[in-house]
Amino acid sequence: MPEKTIWSEDGRVFLLDQTLLPSQRKVIEITTAGEMWQAIRALRVRGAPAIGIAAAYGVWLAVKNASDFDSIPVRQLIENACSYLATARPTAVNLFWALDRIRRLADEYGEMPGEKLKRLILDEAERMVAEDNAVCLAIGQHGAKLLKSGDRVLTHCNAGGLATAQYGTALAVVYCAVEHDGKQIEVFADETRPLLQGSRLTAWELMQAKIPVTLICDNMAGSVMRRGWVNAVIVGTDRVARNGDFANKIGTYGVAVLAREHNVPFYVAAPLSSIDVSIPDGDRIPIEERDPEEIVQMMGTQLAPPGVRVFNPAFDVTPHDLVTAFITEKGVIYPPYDRTIPELFDAPMAANA
Amino acid sequence: MPEKTIWSEDGRVFLLDQTLLPSQRKVIEITTAGEMWQAIRALRVRGAPAIGIAAAYGVWLAVKNASDFDSIPVRQLIENACSYLATARPTAVNLFWALDRIRRLADEYGEMPGEKLKRLILDEAERMVAEDNAVCLAIGQHGAKLLKSGDRVLTHCNAGGLATAQYGTALAVVYCAVEHDGKQIEVFADETRPLLQGSRLTAWELMQAKIPVTLICDNMAGSVMRRGWVNAVIVGTDRVARNGDFANKIGTYGVAVLAREHNVPFYVAAPLSSIDVSIPDGDRIPIEERDPEEIVQMMGTQLAPPGVRVFNPAFDVTPHDLVTAFITEKGVIYPPYDRTIPELFDAPMAANA
Repeated sequence: MPEKTIWSEDGRVFLLDQTLLPSQRKVIEITTAGEMWQAIRALRVRGAPAIGIAAAYGVWLAVKNASDFDSIPVRQLIENACSYLATARPTAVNLFWALDRIRRLADEYGEMPGEKLKRLILDEAERMVAEDNAVCLAIGQHGAKLLKSGDRVLTHCNAGGLATAQYGTALAVVYCAVEHDGKQIEVFADETRPLLQGSRLTAWELMQAKIPVTLICDNMAGSVMRRGWVNAVIVGTDRVARNGDFANKIGTYGVAVLAREHNVPFYVAAPLSSIDVSIPDGDRIPIEERDPEEIVQMMGTQLAPPGVRVFNPAFDVTPHDLVTAFITEKGVIYPPYDRTIPELFDAPMAANA
Repeated sequence: MPEKTIWSEDGRVFLLDQTLLPSQRKVIEITTAGEMWQAIRALRVRGAPAIGIAAAYGVWLAVKNASDFDSIPVRQLIENACSYLATARPTAVNLFWALDRIRRLADEYGEMPGEKLKRLILDEAERMVAEDNAVCLAIGQHGAKLLKSGDRVLTHCNAGGLATAQYGTALAVVYCAVEHDGKQIEVFADETRPLLQGSRLTAWELMQAKIPVTLICDNMAGSVMRRGWVNAVIVGTDRVARNGDFANKIGTYGVAVLAREHNVPFYVAAPLSSIDVSIPDGDRIPIEERDPEEIVQMMGTQLAPPGVRVFNPAFDVTPHDLVTAFITEKGVIYPPYDRTIPELFDAPMAANA
């Protein structure tokens, strides 16, 4: 099973710096909310579930050394940190979900002495880690039933252990199928330009887990599907709308179109924390655009003509009709998603929401 | 209009080293058939039409300093050079087409004195340059009629001037629409992993020509189409089968599937020299697989875990039913290709070929 990516020890917060993988495996300590904002922004920690946890820890770091004798009360520092950390990245809803949990806690216990309130924040962040592990393992076990021994799974970007506290979402399905169910599974990993999370992270963690992985460029996915080499696509998600449209790393949409073209089932591993029932469809999901230099340069080498115009969206939206099923911690759900997604939350479908 | 990519002066052969673009614009002299083989293999000269011309010049270099007083006659040197140069790359049919032209010439005039035969080879290579220019301009003019002012064209890899002697195939259409017809055209250039011909070459030559170009990663093509930003896709080809299936740079197939998904016309700029009527369909096109290091490393930087398994096909085959039309020097042809392609060669459809 994969290693931990973000955790605390005696109130100190550590994370595996994913920008340095696979060349270097380095754990760094994050000591302030500002450092955490930067770490999220720079993708030292990334993956929707992991950045939710990172944001919660970021709030803890903002108040860790505060006291009720300071000019700004702890309660206010928490609110400030939540607002600040929410600006680190716009697309993954887990960031807002985690910060909302912290805010609700602060609302509920805001009258407590600052020292106790601080402890509640740290406890909540640590609880998110524990919950994330349980959620990922449940997703893995539900999803593993969709795979048979000998299957080859194509995945895009990294929805592995490195995208969560430890176990992954899409790759938890593969890990559980292999380690729990004893199936033979191979993986095709799209390298995932521009930041190469597929080659740097997915290939790396699968090799660590001794699961056979073949690295391809993003533009080869169609070719391997056309050769009949892919039995299922499994990806993660940064935000699922109430109708099942979902955002994930740029390129996911193209993979979904190709999967349908080749009658390959297309699964989305989605913890409930990544489902945003407040938005009716994918058109409402904000899409982060990132620095053109991510495409124009690579580790300091100029790849394209200086000054070239670039479009660099970090995510795309895949419409729900391309999704065979969502794999959640509460089980696998199928269309019609405008009914099955709200049911996950034990709420009736809100026709007028 | 673009600059020359491969040419001769007083029997000396020069080419623009495309592996150094866009950082460095360097013309190198190629002095032997062995150097030309390496230059083709290493993609210093690339693009189906250009490597045909390069191969013809390679034969010239093999015999340039030979004489009838040598132990191996000029006629035999030509045959040896043709066999040797044909092994440089397997997919683009233009390589074989050009070498076949040289072989036929040698067959016809094999009894001539070596000095005269040598001169015929050089003349033939130079004729191919002149013909290529005429063919590319004709493709450009026929294709330009398919575009209207304001159109945005998406292209993959480089089928521009850099892929031919000078004017390009897919990009000749854009150049003619802009410079000849006065239309406003913008281009989306897929960067085209792993070797980035889109960012290094297509973006560069379009910027040189002052045609607005936006660089995207390959996995963003679906996203820009879904946003309604693309009016046409135009690509080149390395080999077209008799039924219209065609090979082109890896990733072309995925772009074609996405184009159909979004009702975007998908055009293939195809000189007759790239059409191989000897094969019935795309399954017979050999697909070159290249060094895994092309994906795993970038300019010496390790991008993926050392030892990772890689699949690196240089081309894919797109089935004919995804092609809206082929743009050839004889005009634009539409389905059914198993009739319209053979008609290009003024030959009846060979039902039993």
